[in-house]
Order: sequence, then structure tokens, then C-alpha cells
Amino acid sequence: MCRFLAYHGDPIFLETLVCASEHSLVHQSLHAAECKTATNGDGFGIGWYGERDIPGLFRDLRPAWSDENLRSVCTQVRSGHFFAHVRAATGTVTSRANCHPFAHDRWMFMHNGQIGGYAQIKRRLEAALPDALYHARQGTTDSEALFLLVLAEVAKGSPPPEAVASTLGFTKALMRDAGVDEPLRFTAALTDGETLYCFRLACDDRPASLYFSEQPGAVTVASEPVDRGGDHWQAVPRGAFITVRRGTATTVAPFPWAAEAVAA
Amino acid sequence: MCRFLAYHGDPIFLETLVCASEHSLVHQSLHAAECKTATNGDGFGIGWYGERDIPGLFRDLRPAWSDENLRSVCTQVRSGHFFAHVRAATGTVTSRANCHPFAHDRWMFMHNGQIGGYAQIKRRLEAALPDALYHARQGTTDSEALFLLVLAEVAKGSPPPEAVASTLGFTKALMRDAGVDEPLRFTAALTDGETLYCFRLACDDRPASLYFSEQPGAVTVASEPVDRGGDHWQAVPRGAFITVRRGTATTVAPFPWAAEAVAA
Amino acid sequence: MCRFLAYHGDPIFLETLVCASEHSLVHQSLHAAECKTATNGDGFGIGWYGERDIPGLFRDLRPAWSDENLRSVCTQVRSGHFFAHVRAATGTVTSRANCHPFAHDRWMFMHNGQIGGYAQIKRRLEAALPDALYHARQGTTDSEALFLLVLAEVAKGSPPPEAVASTLGFTKALMRDAGVDEPLRFTAALTDGETLYCFRLACDDRPASLYFSEQPGAVTVASEPVDRGGDHWQAVPRGAFITVRRGTATTVAPFPWAAEAVAA
Amino acid sequence: MCRFLAYHGDPIFLETLVCASEHSLVHQSLHAAECKTATNGDGFGIGWYGERDIPGLFRDLRPAWSDENLRSVCTQVRSGHFFAHVRAATGTVTSRANCHPFAHDRWMFMHNGQIGGYAQIKRRLEAALPDALYHARQGTTDSEALFLLVLAEVAKGSPPPEAVASTLGFTKALMRDAGVDEPLRFTAALTDGETLYCFRLACDDRPASLYFSEQPGAVTVASEPVDRGGDHWQAVPRGAFITVRRGTATTVAPFPWAAEAVAA
Repeated sequence: MCRFLAYHGDPIFLETLVCASEHSLVHQSLHAAECKTATNGDGFGIGWYGERDIPGLFRDLRPAWSDENLRSVCTQVRSGHFFAHVRAATGTVTSRANCHPFAHDRWMFMHNGQIGGYAQIKRRLEAALPDALYHARQGTTDSEALFLLVLAEVAKGSPPPEAVASTLGFTKALMRDAGVDEPLRFTAALTDGETLYCFRLACDDRPASLYFSEQPGAVTVASEPVDRGGDHWQAVPRGAFITVRRGTATTVAPFPWAAEAVAA
Repeated sequence: MCRFLAYHGDPIFLETLVCASEHSLVHQSLHAAECKTATNGDGFGIGWYGERDIPGLFRDLRPAWSDENLRSVCTQVRSGHFFAHVRAATGTVTSRANCHPFAHDRWMFMHNGQIGGYAQIKRRLEAALPDALYHARQGTTDSEALFLLVLAEVAKGSPPPEAVASTLGFTKALMRDAGVDEPLRFTAALTDGETLYCFRLACDDRPASLYFSEQPGAVTVASEPVDRGGDHWQAVPRGAFITVRRGTATTVAPFPWAAEAVAA
Repeated sequence: MCRFLAYHGDPIFLETLVCASEHSLVHQSLHAAECKTATNGDGFGIGWYGERDIPGLFRDLRPAWSDENLRSVCTQVRSGHFFAHVRAATGTVTSRANCHPFAHDRWMFMHNGQIGGYAQIKRRLEAALPDALYHARQGTTDSEALFLLVLAEVAKGSPPPEAVASTLGFTKALMRDAGVDEPLRFTAALTDGETLYCFRLACDDRPASLYFSEQPGAVTVASEPVDRGGDHWQAVPRGAFITVRRGTATTVAPFPWAAEAVAA
Repeated sequence: MCRFLAYHGDPIFLETLVCASEHSLVHQSLHAAECKTATNGDGFGIGWYGERDIPGLFRDLRPAWSDENLRSVCTQVRSGHFFAHVRAATGTVTSRANCHPFAHDRWMFMHNGQIGGYAQIKRRLEAALPDALYHARQGTTDSEALFLLVLAEVAKGSPPPEAVASTLGFTKALMRDAGVDEPLRFTAALTDGETLYCFRLACDDRPASLYFSEQPGAVTVASEPVDRGGDHWQAVPRGAFITVRRGTATTVAPFPWAAEAVAA
């Protein structure tokens, strides 16, 4: 399991949420509270949109809690749209290319969850990628594979939630074919730099935790509230996703795929 | 705090204690049980005596639990005398030179504890080092400073336990002068490659945990027993040290300095 | 390009060839003489056979010339059969999983060369791997893909040189289909822990340099002689491979595939 | 030896000088032209002034030429005042704390050169630091020691060039006392975030190369011109220093200490 946060709103220094708050993401890297493993020390990453067409990406292998580069970059960089992630590896190696977030063109993605029986379907998942995205793959995680499959659907014209639904449906079908009993869990954030989509899904109805806070000019989505006392946090319902655009508008909706997938 | 183990006996593969046992040191790096912090992810190190005059040293910055190099080296290397350590940093940076064990000539040392108010006395501690050992210092930890001060005493002819007593007495005096209230804690292992000394000391009578197991041809000393059910483990008494020579002879003795230091 | 060496003979400390000699592999990492790039600083690796069924592997990302762990491990470990490699990356990321040597079961492989137009045929190369080897892939290099394809042929019963011939033939055919003009170059070492095969091949007749030295109880194969004045080094002829067994017997033979591939 | 650059002027993306130009600093990390060693692969660092009181710092151990984080941060971060450095270590270990630039409060420093016989005078240099700066020391290099000594002089009220003169005079005196014959070389950049001072000094009149380019709204100082054909680059004379303020004003002046030190 992992912990992550996504911010969309008026530009703030990344450190506000990543390092400085009472239960910041860096604090969660050592003391996660709503997670099977309290320790998320297998690398970290931040991704942010600034003045460029593509997001900046800084991912490294040392635990977030002691990385002085992470702290300094987060102190200096201000962004109105950023992701941050601390990783607890589930089977794949610790390498920068396996750290979240993943970026491709303007898109960015991070994931907290897993594909049950991934080793049994990895090959068929990867085979479903179109050439360009196959070559864009840099690491070996299930998460990056899901991201690229979603982008393939988006490239065909699907709105992101439908692209996610179709990708998860396809993945679940591969798992069924391979006789996998373990669940598919997908608590994740996806953005094109303008609209943020966050999902809290699992075919066994036990998705990883996800919360959001909507305040004037600032929507934050996080695995765990970053300021413990804050009553402005709401849980994203299981089987739902939220959409954030232009700083404040947050829409919570049931995910089209959830019911069917659980049934399946 | 940190976790460590020392082995002296018939040569075994390092992995036996470092990676493979039920509560191996690698397991303790993520799930320490008798420690303020369960996570010891700020680097690790192994040091071992083989065919050379000086010990081998392999120290790195990533958490021990996911380091494939550590696992492979421990699978291949067999030694009758080795140290292993996983670190939870207490204020100094994560760098290889700050990872334990420390080695100098034939000597090796590792430490679980701390010098209270270290920043206030660091300069005077370092000033007490003779030139050659001042230059041998590679990192910035209190632990390495203590090691080199002990070696300075040994070089003057003191037996190791007396060298430790004198070093801790000197350090405690500096702390008193500086008005430091925090304790000096010293659970540590020291060896010249032939005799192993392990100490469990603290001026506030709350030293970090330390256990030993004496079996035919194998003495193991560890922060926590590495096989949980084993009733062959005994706690090293507070304020005591043990001496291990030629594979099996273990002597537990009260440490000469302890009483005086607590009084002081 | 990269530099490598392979040793087969009476057990020696790895440092003899890796660190200590006049033009050791570590020296070549900074001052390669027969290589397009003098600097081979994108990671390194050693692999050695000891008392275990599988080889030990130690690969890391920092330049070999300044890695104190590499130096210490090479000072301590003695082996009668080992590989060492320093990498100059050609397009793929610097990660441990992309460092040579690669190991699978008892087999080990390292490579100095490249597949021209790799991005255009990577997908079809990987698709040719049987399931078990597809899942064994840990990195993203062309070299690891070639290694696993060779192992697939060996698993079908081919002797290693034929497995290499068949793999290179297949690769060359994919390159032709994709309209790739760049060459396929394969200076490489392969072993099962008992017999060592080293190849110096390229479809444009410009394979990377390779030398061998046969002395009593010691055969060394290296990209560049490790002791500059030594007249005991012979170049492996272009389009040839050598076989080393039981310490001394070295056979140089033309590689069956070379002529055909150049023609094609 | 090392290579570095300093920029002061209208805000630009760091990549312009660090990664993108024909002979950018990243290019110089692998192909330095005016340097004893062409390879500067022992870590790198960037430091920049943005919206905060203190500079941002990002230093890491892998060679600059293959570090994807460096590239991404330099693509995103825009600054009107920044430093960048690639290191070729001269005896001290490769660690983040030994990478340039060094920062303390608002001050930043980087160095290309060395203190001859540093091991013989290190202790006395460090002993000259006032307490607060002694504790601020994070690494073990001669460069950081010089930086902190200069800051100690500045704290006493010296203008930076005089602080440098006094520090180098003191260092040279220690070298003389210790009977050191090797030279003291100091090609360096120092700034408080507003005024940039760059020095090209050596007691043997063989300081490392240093150039500057003054264009409207942009002064760049670099070990080697970053665009090879550019005739807007001038060498900083040996024994001189330059001062850059408010974007364009560059003053080249003889360094007060140079003559005396050479005489001594």
C-alpha cells in the first residue's frame, strides 16, 4: 500500500501539504494510520504543473522522511496543481521508474492499490498497449501499466472516467481468465493538468482510504487527512470518484464500473 | 534508535541472521518490537571478517528490507565474526559514512543509543581525538566519534572495556559542563576481529535492549532475538557488558563505569 | 558502450582484476582506451560464483571509480569464476535492474554492444519470450532481452553458442523487417557457472574490442587488457567466440552465424 | 577539478544553461574541455533563489548527465540567480553533503580548486570556525570549510572579497606552517542572493579556468563557455575577481590577496 495526495487550487508551496502539516505526506511515510503498513519507505515522488506544458517530476528511492532534496524542492516550488506519493512496494523492485507519480505528455497518474495476481496477467496487460505507449513504459509496476492503458482509451476519445472503467473492466476480465482470486483495488488520481479525477474503487469493496477537502480556492484529496483535527475532510465513498475543475468545483459520483465488477 | 546484531562462532552465511530468520535484522528494520520506532529505514550496514586483515564493509542508504544487494551479499558471504546494523537516524544526515558499523584498521564498532545534547559537545568531543583518528573520521555521527575516542584509549594501552569506560566518563563530563539533561545511552558492540565486547549502558538506567544467545560454536548478540520463540536468549543486564572469545566463552560482567556515571 | 571482464580459474580476490591492476576495470570506468566513450559511469555490477548454487550479484548506480562498497566487497570476496561490468548507458535509464551482469538461476550474462533500432523491435523481441522468462525480466535493456532469449533457446536444448546464433539471427530478422540500418553488435559473456562463452560479433564487422589471456590456472577475458604491458593478451578475432572450461582450456572458433548475418 | 556556472539576470529556466546549450554544464560533466579530467561524475548540485529567503538546493550523487530528476527540475524552475556544479572528487567521499553548492542562511558557495595538503591542516581549519558555523558543517570537504570560514569573516563585518582574502591568507599560513608544497587554488562563486562574487585565484598562478559573459539582463559566469561559438565570453584574468549586482553591472578587479600570497 502507499499514501498519496493531490492538490488543485490557488498556487501554494508544495511543502504546505507534503512536509509541513501535522500529518503531512512525509509524516504519513513513517506513520500512516489507515493503512496495513505504517511505513511507506520504498521511494517517493512529486509531480507538479508550473509554467511548462508538461509536469515536473522528482522521484527518488530514499524514504521521504529523510530526503533533504525533497524538502528543499517542496519549500521552493509553488504550484496550483500537484501530486505527491510515498510508496510501500508490493513485489516490484525499488527504482525511480517504479515510483509514482507517472507522467506522459501532459498526463499524470498515481495509484494506491494493486492488481491481484499481477504476475499472471502482466504479459497480457502489456500486450494490450498500443506501440507508442508500450515504448513509453519505463518501469515494471502494475500501476504504470494501468496508467498507460487508460491513456490508450483516452486517445481513442473516451472521457477519463470511462477510460478507467474500460481499463479496469479489461483487467478484471484478464484476472478472471487467469483464475485470480485476489482483488483488484484502485484508489488513484489522474489528471491532464486541468481536471483532476480521483477514484476509490475495489472489486472486493475494500478500496484503500481516500478523503477530500473542499475549501475556497483549494481542493485537496489525500489517502489520509493531512491535518488531523480538520473536520473539513470527507471520505470519498467506496465505489465513487470525484472530479475537480477550475479550483473549486468538486463532483462526487458513483463509478459506472463498480457494481458490475463486484458482481463479476 | 537502531537495531543490530553481532555474531561470533563457526562460520555461517550472513543471511542466516540478517535476512532469513523469523525476526531477522531485515525484519526488524521494518517491524522492530522493542524500540521506540518500529522503522529502521535510514540506511544499513554489514561488516565481516574473512580472509583479510581488515573487515569487509557494505553500507548503503536504502532501507534494508528492499535492498537486493544486501540480500545477495548476505547469501554468498560466510563469516565467523560479523556485525549487521539497521539505522533510524537521530538528527544527522543519511549518508554511507554515517551508517554503522564503522571500521578502522582491524576494529569495528556499532552503536544503538545517543549522546544527549550532542550538538552542544560535538566540537569538544572531536577536539579530543588525536590527529590520526581525527583524520580517520568520515561521517558526522556521535557514534563514530565515540568509536574513535575509544580507539584512542585503546592505543594508549587500555583494555577495551576500560577504554569505553574512560570515553563515556569523558563524554558525560562534557555533557555536565554543557548543562545537558538528556541521557547518554550506549548499547554497542566493539571488536578487534578476535574478541567481541557488547555493552548495555545508559546513565539514566534505560539502555536500549540487548540479548545474547550462547550455543555450541555460536554466540549471537542482538537488539532483539532473531527467532521469536527461542528460549535460548537472555537479556544482557542493564549496566553490564559481555565478552566473547574463541567462539563460545561468554562472560557477563558489571560495567565499571555504570554506577559512578548514574550517580554523576 | 561499456567495458567488462570475465575470469575463470583458480580462485582470486575480485579486486585483483576489478580494482588493483594498472588498467583495472575500475580504471577503465574512467579512462577506457578502446571505446567511443572513455567514461563508463552509468552504474556497474559484479557477479560471482561461490559456495551457492546461484551467483552473487552486486550492482549499483554510482560510478565504479568512487564506490567504496564495490572496493570493499572486491577486497573480501574470492572466486574462481566471476564477471564485472561498467556501464555507459545507451538510451535506457540508469537503474540497478539495467546494470550488468544479469543473472537467472545459475546463468549469468553481460554485454557490450547494442541492438540497432532497439525501440522499433523491443516489443517483438519481448513478445518472443516464453512466459517464465517474460516474468523474469527486471529491467528494460536490450541486453537483458537478448540474455533471456538465449536462455529460452538453451531451455529447448540448444548448446549456448547455437542459442546465441539463433537469438541473433532472430533479432537481425526483426531489425530487417523494421527497416533498421543501424548495426547489431554483440560482444558478450555468458556462463552457466562452469563453462564460459565469450563472443565478439557484429553484423557490420565492427564489434567492440575483446581480449583474452590464458595463463596456468587462469583465463581472463576483458574489453581491454587490465595490465597494459602484458603481452599475454590476444585479441579475440572478429566474428569469433571462445569457450573456457575447467580453468585453462580455451577454444577460439568462428561463430556460425557471423557470415550469414553480415551477408543479410 | 570540477565545473560550475553562476547566473545573475532576468529569470530564466535553469535548463537553458544547465542542460540545453551546446556545451551546457551537463555536457561538461562528461566532456569538460579545459580541465585535467574530462569527467565530472562524482555528484552534482544546483542552488537557486526563488520566492523564499533561503535558496533551494538539490544535490545528488549520480552523474549529472544521466539524472532525470536534475533534468526535470531544471526544466521547471525559473530563477534570476542560480548556481550549478558538477563534481570530480579529489579525495573526499561522494556524499550529498560533499556536493556543491553549499548553502547557509541566504549565502551560497561553490568551488573549483583545492587546498594543497588539506589532510594536514583540516583540523586547524575546522578549529578556526566559530561554534555556530562549526555545527553548520554537514560534510567533510575543504570547500565547505573555506565557505564557512568566509562566512565567519563576513559575520565580523568584512565585505565578501576581504573575507575571502583573509580566509585564504589564513589557509595559506596554515599550509606554510605544515610545510605543504602543493598549491592553494580557488576558483569559486559566492553570493548572498543579491550580489555575486566570482574569484579566479591560485597561489601558483594556475587557477582553474573561469569565463564570464555580460549581455543585457544576463551575466553568466562559467568554468567553460556554455555555447562554444559565443564570442561574448571573456576570461576572468588570473588573480582577479568579478562582482555582479542588479543584473548587469560587472566589475573585474585584481584580488587584494593574490600578489602577497604568491610572494609567500
